[in-house]
Order: sequence, then C-alpha cells, then structure tokens
Amino acid sequence: MIIVNFKTYLESTGKRAVELAKQAEKASKETGVNIIVVPQFADLAKVSEAVEIPVFTQHIDPIKPGNSTGHILAESVMEAGAVGTLINHSERQLKLAEIDAIVRLTREKNLLSCVCTSNPSISAAVAYLNPDIISIEPPELIGTGVAVSQAQPEAVTDTIRLVRKVNDEAVILCGAGISRGEDVSIALKLGTHGVLVASGIVKAKDPYSVLCAFADSALK
Amino acid sequence: MIIVNFKTYLESTGKRAVELAKQAEKASKETGVNIIVVPQFADLAKVSEAVEIPVFTQHIDPIKPGNSTGHILAESVMEAGAVGTLINHSERQLKLAEIDAIVRLTREKNLLSCVCTSNPSISAAVAYLNPDIISIEPPELIGTGVAVSQAQPEAVTDTIRLVRKVNDEAVILCGAGISRGEDVSIALKLGTHGVLVASGIVKAKDPYSVLCAFADSALK
Amino acid sequence: MIIVNFKTYLESTGKRAVELAKQAEKASKETGVNIIVVPQFADLAKVSEAVEIPVFTQHIDPIKPGNSTGHILAESVMEAGAVGTLINHSERQLKLAEIDAIVRLTREKNLLSCVCTSNPSISAAVAYLNPDIISIEPPELIGTGVAVSQAQPEAVTDTIRLVRKVNDEAVILCGAGISRGEDVSIALKLGTHGVLVASGIVKAKDPYSVLCAFADSALK
Amino acid sequence: MIIVNFKTYLESTGKRAVELAKQAEKASKETGVNIIVVPQFADLAKVSEAVEIPVFTQHIDPIKPGNSTGHILAESVMEAGAVGTLINHSERQLKLAEIDAIVRLTREKNLLSCVCTSNPSISAAVAYLNPDIISIEPPELIGTGVAVSQAQPEAVTDTIRLVRKVNDEAVILCGAGISRGEDVSIALKLGTHGVLVASGIVKAKDPYSVLCAFADSALK
Repeated sequence: MIIVNFKTYLESTGKRAVELAKQAEKASKETGVNIIVVPQFADLAKVSEAVEIPVFTQHIDPIKPGNSTGHILAESVMEAGAVGTLINHSERQLKLAEIDAIVRLTREKNLLSCVCTSNPSISAAVAYLNPDIISIEPPELIGTGVAVSQAQPEAVTDTIRLVRKVNDEAVILCGAGISRGEDVSIALKLGTHGVLVASGIVKAKDPYSVLCAFADSALK
Repeated sequence: MIIVNFKTYLESTGKRAVELAKQAEKASKETGVNIIVVPQFADLAKVSEAVEIPVFTQHIDPIKPGNSTGHILAESVMEAGAVGTLINHSERQLKLAEIDAIVRLTREKNLLSCVCTSNPSISAAVAYLNPDIISIEPPELIGTGVAVSQAQPEAVTDTIRLVRKVNDEAVILCGAGISRGEDVSIALKLGTHGVLVASGIVKAKDPYSVLCAFADSALK
Repeated sequence: MIIVNFKTYLESTGKRAVELAKQAEKASKETGVNIIVVPQFADLAKVSEAVEIPVFTQHIDPIKPGNSTGHILAESVMEAGAVGTLINHSERQLKLAEIDAIVRLTREKNLLSCVCTSNPSISAAVAYLNPDIISIEPPELIGTGVAVSQAQPEAVTDTIRLVRKVNDEAVILCGAGISRGEDVSIALKLGTHGVLVASGIVKAKDPYSVLCAFADSALK
Repeated sequence: MIIVNFKTYLESTGKRAVELAKQAEKASKETGVNIIVVPQFADLAKVSEAVEIPVFTQHIDPIKPGNSTGHILAESVMEAGAVGTLINHSERQLKLAEIDAIVRLTREKNLLSCVCTSNPSISAAVAYLNPDIISIEPPELIGTGVAVSQAQPEAVTDTIRLVRKVNDEAVILCGAGISRGEDVSIALKLGTHGVLVASGIVKAKDPYSVLCAFADSALK
C-alpha cells in the first residue's frame, strides 16, 4: 500500500491535484499496487470524480453536523468522495481524546482511519484505539529525503513489535523521507505493509515514474 | 449585504449546499441585494461552479504552500472559487497574531476578508487591522432566534461608533439570531450594512422565501 | 492511595491551600493511608514547606529551561517541592505527543506521573506510555457527586483489564463524583488502588473528616 | 520603567529567582527607576516576600475560581503577591477574545496589565482594549542581542503613533534584543516609557550592573 499525501503543495492543488491523482491511478492499475491519494479538502470532489483509486481526506474533526464553522465534517468529506482519513499527522497533531473520538467516528461512518505517529511508544498507544492503519513518521525526517526505513529501522521494527502485542489487524506503514524505490523495499523487509509519502512524489519531476518505481519495489 | 454561513449543517452539505446556493442566487438576482454564500471547504468547487454570486470560505490558515497537512491554503480555496473568507468566527476563534496574518494574506491574494467579533471592544481592535468586513456576533445569541439587532442594539451601535473612529471603510454587519425580516431592517436602521446569518436560512423550510424577506427588509 | 486535586477553587487557594494540605497530612498520618495533595502552581512552595506528605503539581509542560514565558517548567515546580504531576486532566487535555513527551520528562527528572484518562480505550493507550499512575475519570461525572465507581463500574474494570494486558506496574485510580466512603470502598473492590478526588474534599465542610472516612474505607 | 521577564531560565528559577529579584530591587532603589520583576508561577510567593518592587506574573487565564485544573487563576497569583500580569507574550500567544477577557479581568481585580504585541497594527488593535501597558516585541529579535530600538525603530514609532490615535494613557514599552544601556536610551528617545527585557538581564554575568546601566540610560 502506498498513501500519497498531497499536503498543501502548489504542485498538488486544484487542477494539478486532479492530474497527480490520475498519474497515481495509472501507476496503481499498471502495477496492481494499492495507491491511495490524499488531496486538500477543496479538491476532494474533483479528485474523487476523476479517479477510481481510494481518496482520503487529510483530517476530520470529532464533530457532529451543526454549529462548527470552519471545521471538517465527516459527512461533508464523504459526500465529496473521501473513503478514509489521515488522523494526527505531525503537521496536524491532536489531543489523545480527539484521536480516540475520531477513530470511533470513522468506524461509525465506515471511513478508513490512518493514524500517524512519531515514535514506537506513541504507535503502541494508538494501536489500542484500533485504527485501520498506523503510520509511523519521525517528524525530523519529513521532507528530508533521508528515509525512515534506512535512517531509523529500529523505530519501524519497534513499532511493529509493540503494535502487534495488542493489535493483530492494523496495517502498519512508515513514512518520512521516502524518495527511492529502495526505501520502499527496505520498509517492506522491515515488516511494514507499505509507505506514506508526500514530497517524494508531489515534488518529483515525473511523479508517475517514481510511483511506478515505488510500486515495483513494493512487489519484489 | 447578506452573508449566509452554511456552517456544518447537513441541510447545507454536498448537493444540498449547491441547492441552497442556487436559491440564494435567485433571491439575490430578484431583489438586487448582494448575497454571499459560505459553504464548507469540500463544497466550494461545486457551489462556485453552480452560482455567480460571491462564494466565501469559512476559514483560511495563515500559511504558505508546503508542509501543512490538514490546513486550509488560500491558493486552494481560491482555485476552488472562493473570493473571500470568514476569519475568527466564534466557532473557530483565532489568536490575535493569526487574525493579523490572515487579513494581510487576504490583501496580498485579493481575497475579501470578513472578521467576526463578539463585542464592541473586540470589533474596534479588529478595525485597526483593516479587514474589508467586520461582523459583530454575540456568541450567546447564535442559533437562538433572538436577534442581536433587537436584543443588543447597543452592542451594534457601539461597534459602529468605535470602528468608525479609526476605520472609515470597513463594511459593518451584525449577526446572531437573525430570523425575521424585521431583524434585518432594524440592523440596517442601527447603521450596519447588512447581516451575517446561518440557521435562520439554512434551517428554514423555504430558505428562498426567507432570503427574499431579508433582502426586501434590507431594501426598505 | 488518595490524590486530592485542589483545582482552582477559592477554598483551596493560598493560605487555604496550606490549611487543606495540613488536614490531608493529619488524615494520612492517623490512618496510614497515602494521601497526595495537588495545589495550584503558586501555592506549591508554601504547601510543600508545610507538610511532609507528597505534593504534586497540576501540570507541567514538555519544555526545557529557556524561552517559554508563561509555561510550567519541571525544574521550577520541583524546586518548589513537587514530587509528581498530573498529566492530561480532562480540564487540561493534551496532544498525544505531548503526553508521551511529558511522561518521558518525568522519568528523566524522577517525578511521579499520573495520567488522567476519560475512558477504557484511552486508559489502555496511555498504559503503553508507562506512567506511574493512570486515573480514569469520565468527564461527565466530574463534580456531580455521582461516583464513577458506582455509576460506571464497567469503565473501571475495563480500564484495569486493558491496562494490565500491557502494563503490570501502573497504579490504577478512578475519579469523578467520589463523595462518600462507600464510593472509595467500591473503587477498591473493583480492583483500583485508590481514588482521585477534588470537590468531594475541597468543598466539604470538614475536609479532614471526609478524608478520614475515605481513608478508612480504603483500609477495609 | 524596566520590566524583567524571568521566563523559564534556570538562572531565574527558585532561589535564583529570589536572588535576581533582590538585585533588581537594589538597582531600582539606587537609581530611582521603576523596575518590575516577572518570575515563574511557582516562585511568585517567595519573590514577593523578598522584595518590595512590583512583581508580575507571566500569564493568567480568563477563568473564574472552580474547575480549571492546571490553569492560572488571578486570585491565586494575587494572593502569592502578583500585582500585574503579562498577557499574550509571543511565547504564550492568545486568542483575541481571550486577551479582551483577561484585560477586563485585570481591571476587575485591580491587577496591572501588560499586553505584548509583535507589530504596530497588533499594538494598535490592543490599544482599543485599554490595557495599562503595551509592549511591542518583534519575535524575530527576541534573545538575539539585536535591539528592537536599533534594528526596527519604525516598528516602535509606528506603534506609538497608532496607539496614541485611540489611547492616551497606556504606557508603551519595547522589547526584544535589549542588551546595552544604549538600546534603552534609544528606546526612550523613540518615545517609549521603557523596556521589557529578559535574557539581557537574566543571562548577564552581573545582572545588577546591567540593570543599573539600563536604569541610568533611562534617566538621561
């Protein structure tokens, strides 16, 4: 599994979000690897209409419909086509009680949940909340091109070991600095199910080729 | 001027956001009154394509393009069709330095800015930041059906008096509890340029008729 | 173990904090039950000098000495006499990454850590961060006089069961609504090591007598 | 007026806070210049007992006595000896509505209020809330030793000009990077009433001498 977080880069905003999603879809269909795209809120509807691969939202708030101006309602992003959500990304960190409430909300709404964590003990804590996906991303490596799978392999293996003590089912990903196919294949050898990437794809000159290289590495 | 905040009501989410915006457009064209709609982020693109009246976003973050997962980028909502933004709504309150940074950002990007305030002294403070629109909304009246223009006329007139000491140009609105045409006409008599409404329209059985009544009152 | 949270009640501010702590000390010495007091920051030094029972602080921030105006430095509360800290009280909720950082900081500084949680799954999540004490307090019962041990016994037993899967050592308390000796004895029968109380003691006409009643119930 | 913010430096924590306050008192008495000290919460009581010069707290929360674990109650810091408070320091930034509420609270409680701001327009906004003192501190200069009065004189003079349009009474200070007597005399020539300093004093080898130099410059 490869999750592509579009963040708030201009290269992945508006029309360019739709274009990037189409390239991700093409790479997914050719390689057979599950690729998920995560555009900004305002791009969810257009991206969801343009591609058949899963579209996640970057965040939802733990709210019910009503008086919440400026917040992200699950029902709204779902009607725009989102089938899942990132939760607690290091650039959008949440209170523990909010993470718990949002994971519960995703279960109630049949949304997939991907909780981002920054170290093994936080990953383990999150495992007990039963999200569908846990992605460990050491914040200090994000955007550096130095891959977590190579720079901190023990953060990845410790995460897997601790999570598996209490949770057999969660998909485990790793992220931060993933920029070459080799980073992906090492991530899988360490025991993860895939990677969460952003600038490595969004800022690439040819995102399609890089995604294919990532996907090929994931298949080996 | 009538600004209709869609908040996160189900009645104004997704397809229903587009429907509501069309009714606002119809009321605006028939009466000649300027009506602005403010849907959720995920609905901006569809609403903007469906109507010609101005579309605002409910919030933007004081960020530049880049590493801001889960945040609201001005460029993103603008490409989705937003021409303005609410700032500091009582349900999305901001730090003073953030309000200042967002108002500057809107000027740089040619977005219209509507800063929401909760009392006259806060309105006056905001006046010095030079937003395009200042809307006073006492939080305790929001959603009550008890109109600020009738329950707290002095909050409205004090706001106008203090704002005008330092700012001749800002459009001044009032909101909270506006539910009848009479509430609008009193708001105008008090010296405002119009109203910011939400549940009074969104939850109405026939939003079009209520908007026409509001607009008619605004014209008298 | 009985932890008495002084919160920000006037009855437990300043000189009255010192008086209340002395009564807690007297009850502790007479009954032999471990009683910990948790005054406000500004009262830590005076309370610590007045009593020999353990004094906790209500919060610390995950910071190092330096540029953090208005924040709570571990070294500062420790020099004022605190030997432990509450973390993530429902009235001072924290991000998951902050809870992790503060628990690590307490270990480094030899401070005792008491993380407050609001439901069994959050308690279990926290268990993996290895604090010294975990206290479950359903927020809806705080200050009601309806005891968690009687109103939600399954929240308490589920917490114990889930925490013990991964953590054999943490002291487990429960709180919210504890106001009678019976509430304490039920809490212990459910498997906890004691209670976290606030208004039940602070607002009592005779805090000493109530604490003795709590302590006697804890001994049965 | 010289306000010395102790921040959370080890050099100004606990016993060393008391020592530093005594040196400030000595400098104040010898020069006749008004010097205010701002220790951490846990040091307020000891510092207030040790010196007769005014003691401020670094922050208060906009709360009433009651259920606010981990927050800063005005009544608590006042009983510990604080006669004023910093508000909205750049290291403890607040929502606009909170600043308004805290300034009102200080008036109600007869506490002096010093609101920190980061640029002229924010200073002007704050002027309308009528605090006793407004201190402009460009965050990018804090702790650098490059003085605001020399590096950004126009930020200081613009602040004074804009504040005076609506507020004749507020004391106006400037801070950030103040480290030499010359920085203070320039600040006064620009039209301020004094300076807000931190590391320039706290980290000085001989704080007393530096404070005397600052005070002497303030008198010229």
